[in-house]
Amino acid sequence: MFNDFKPEEGRPVYIQLKEYLKRLITNGHLPEHTKLPSTREMSELAGVSRNTVLASYGELEQEGLVYPVKGKGHFVGKVTTEKSPEASLDWEKKLNDDVRIACDMDLMKHGVRWEKGMIAFNSIAPDEKLFDVENVKRAFLNRMAIEGQVVLNYGYAKGYKPLIDLLFHYMEVKGVDLTGKDILMTNGFTEGLDIVLSALCKKSGRIICENPTHQSALKLFRLHGYVVHGIPMEEDGVSIEQLKEALSQSDYDLAYFIPSYHNPTGIVTSSEKRMAVMNLFSHYDIPIIEDGFNEELRYSGSHFSPLLAIAGQGNNVVYISSFSKILFPGLRVGWILADRYLIEQLESVKRARTIHTSTLDQALLYQYMHDGYFEKYLKKAKAVYKRKYECAWAACQKYIPYKRLTGDGGLHLFVELEDGVDARTLLRQCYAKGVVFSPGDVFYTNGGGKNTFRLGFSRLSEAEIRLGIQRIGDTLKNMLEART
Amino acid sequence: MFNDFKPEEGRPVYIQLKEYLKRLITNGHLPEHTKLPSTREMSELAGVSRNTVLASYGELEQEGLVYPVKGKGHFVGKVTTEKSPEASLDWEKKLNDDVRIACDMDLMKHGVRWEKGMIAFNSIAPDEKLFDVENVKRAFLNRMAIEGQVVLNYGYAKGYKPLIDLLFHYMEVKGVDLTGKDILMTNGFTEGLDIVLSALCKKSGRIICENPTHQSALKLFRLHGYVVHGIPMEEDGVSIEQLKEALSQSDYDLAYFIPSYHNPTGIVTSSEKRMAVMNLFSHYDIPIIEDGFNEELRYSGSHFSPLLAIAGQGNNVVYISSFSKILFPGLRVGWILADRYLIEQLESVKRARTIHTSTLDQALLYQYMHDGYFEKYLKKAKAVYKRKYECAWAACQKYIPYKRLTGDGGLHLFVELEDGVDARTLLRQCYAKGVVFSPGDVFYTNGGGKNTFRLGFSRLSEAEIRLGIQRIGDTLKNMLEART
Repeated sequence: MFNDFKPEEGRPVYIQLKEYLKRLITNGHLPEHTKLPSTREMSELAGVSRNTVLASYGELEQEGLVYPVKGKGHFVGKVTTEKSPEASLDWEKKLNDDVRIACDMDLMKHGVRWEKGMIAFNSIAPDEKLFDVENVKRAFLNRMAIEGQVVLNYGYAKGYKPLIDLLFHYMEVKGVDLTGKDILMTNGFTEGLDIVLSALCKKSGRIICENPTHQSALKLFRLHGYVVHGIPMEEDGVSIEQLKEALSQSDYDLAYFIPSYHNPTGIVTSSEKRMAVMNLFSHYDIPIIEDGFNEELRYSGSHFSPLLAIAGQGNNVVYISSFSKILFPGLRVGWILADRYLIEQLESVKRARTIHTSTLDQALLYQYMHDGYFEKYLKKAKAVYKRKYECAWAACQKYIPYKRLTGDGGLHLFVELEDGVDARTLLRQCYAKGVVFSPGDVFYTNGGGKNTFRLGFSRLSEAEIRLGIQRIGDTLKNMLEART
Repeated sequence: MFNDFKPEEGRPVYIQLKEYLKRLITNGHLPEHTKLPSTREMSELAGVSRNTVLASYGELEQEGLVYPVKGKGHFVGKVTTEKSPEASLDWEKKLNDDVRIACDMDLMKHGVRWEKGMIAFNSIAPDEKLFDVENVKRAFLNRMAIEGQVVLNYGYAKGYKPLIDLLFHYMEVKGVDLTGKDILMTNGFTEGLDIVLSALCKKSGRIICENPTHQSALKLFRLHGYVVHGIPMEEDGVSIEQLKEALSQSDYDLAYFIPSYHNPTGIVTSSEKRMAVMNLFSHYDIPIIEDGFNEELRYSGSHFSPLLAIAGQGNNVVYISSFSKILFPGLRVGWILADRYLIEQLESVKRARTIHTSTLDQALLYQYMHDGYFEKYLKKAKAVYKRKYECAWAACQKYIPYKRLTGDGGLHLFVELEDGVDARTLLRQCYAKGVVFSPGDVFYTNGGGKNTFRLGFSRLSEAEIRLGIQRIGDTLKNMLEART
């Protein structure tokens, strides 16, 4: 005993020795009143200095695990190591249908597995090689110097004030009228959407949105028990005709749109369609959730106003966004900008569920943006992503016999094949050749999209993009030939 | 125009000028095809260098807000500034009863307002003056140097692997048998509890717990639609007799206990009662949520095993904890340690709702603990809190005519007055004398506890603690005298 103590590097040895002994005591290997070796003996047995042993014994004493007897040494204190009869619950029976929905729709569990060395088009996470870690460090140290203690203690459910103010300004510059509006900070976009959904009255139990749409949103709609009605995407945004018809035929509790940079199609809704959507909804008593997804990642063309800006002082748009896909997804920071009364109510829901969003993350993001690192990074990232985007687009045009190819910027393209061509079959064949992508059906509200797939290119090199798309194209051509 | 541009300090001026102009454009003050002043003119008008103007114009061009005409300068591009008819939703009618529960039970909204200069006993947040900001910085820089890019990119819903491994070890050392168990990282304790509640089948719709209990837990139980049955707290933990009786009389979907350091009473459940609880529950098919609240903040006495340790290889205990009250609440990091199958399912719920917990927060916490700063900080903090605790205890004994005083360590004491003495009346009178505390009724499951209050002392000096408690005592004595 004791001579099997093997401390790891880089962690204080006295803590490791304390933990080693504590484990022996709490697990019953050293019963009550057992005399511990003297500090000198232990020092030899464990191969550490006597001071280390002294420090460890001191810690154990403080925790009530050992007690000293003057002139005699240290003895093990009273620790319950008894166990109760072992319970064996059948957890499967304890869980509800929501858990099943969450598991069934969990792409990380049921998505394509890929192995190292494959060309993987299934991620739309940013390329971490672009992160300017040095400026992140700088921003962190700047903020900690200004108010380190504040950043580490409890914050407010509403969010970190300097960041909220910065975002107000950020959105106002985009043309948003802030009158009567307020901001709630959230753990990324997803929590923002979840909070709004959990607060809404369910009347018709129906949500209207673009088809296809963001899979995480679709999952949350289902988890909240909504029936989802999707309206087809045209090349410049949702079909206004079909939207109009759907609204005239059924009631909806909520609308959800991703006009800025639609996921998964990559379509940017035109100014005309934005106006048309907002004009249409001004006749209906239906809140609109606007997903600000990747508004910043356009590489060309003109400026588009968010729906929230078009709404003016109207209060029907709930704008939810984050910088995750552009900046650092490891920081979970998103925000809801909406009607002030609504935000005030949602603040209590947020507090009930997660107290508040990490102040550290918010403070770091604030400082990073305030100091101008965001713009610098965005410029660099856009230049890199733009090249990848153009490379991917050109390769798709060259190699893939598609019916429709969409994606106006961002980190992915969306491919629609001829009707009847199964993207999952294609995926299986591509997998064998070391290329994977995201089958598009998971984004569809109605079981459609079997002939579609999404190509995320953010983390691949241009050579990989070209090679991967060529392989997909070749595989597809073989598949089509075999059919005829 | 343009000469009202006033840049703030510490933020790159070219970005501020870009934002200033962007705002004018998106808000319609500079219509399409308006010629912007030449860079020289703008430089004079805005009082900035020509290079700054050039950089701003370049950014605006990139965003599609202005276009250059060779030899003529920069012109405003096409930007929609049109608004739709203003919608006016009645948000009050759009929100459901859960929102009302969250608002009604929101102590930050309905709790005691206090003003600067008052002696405020209503916080149990740690004292930020104790934070060792330097070691936090060190831990951050260490981690960023090792894997800054990983920390900033997407993580896993399950959590940050090094931290999970560290927590496994941390809990094993406490005597927990990890066989068949796993960990899910969450945004603090609160999200952990919320996720578990949202995953459970509701059969009886009843939860059994200590009375009083943690208010955030109580709020979540109500939000999830549960009826809460509270069992009175005795000086060494929950009443086993009454627990036994309640279990034999009704069905429960869930039990919730805070044995380590009960909130609000501050009672540490004795080893005997822990065994009794676990022995009792081994006869029932009821999951137990164990709240590990402040397990680390005991100042004296012997070691106590978590219920999870007593359960051995049994799978009926779901242990949820965080270090928020000890370390840095600004970092939102908690964890669930429970049956592996359960964790695997909850992982998908977590992913659906908040994707994952901030990797930055987790990585920082990991490094801080790994490097041994946690133990050092805990030692320092415990020494300070212990003095405050002893001071508060002595002052209560001296000044307050209580029926029962509890609190074995931690950051607060709990006072029970004679039956019929109203703590809220006392609070109103103390408020007038510049002292506030938390009335205890908010912690009760059954509308009881009107004669109780909680005294959080963590952020007060010893002089303030003494003075405040003396004032409460004097006020109470006057109140009692006036009654007779």
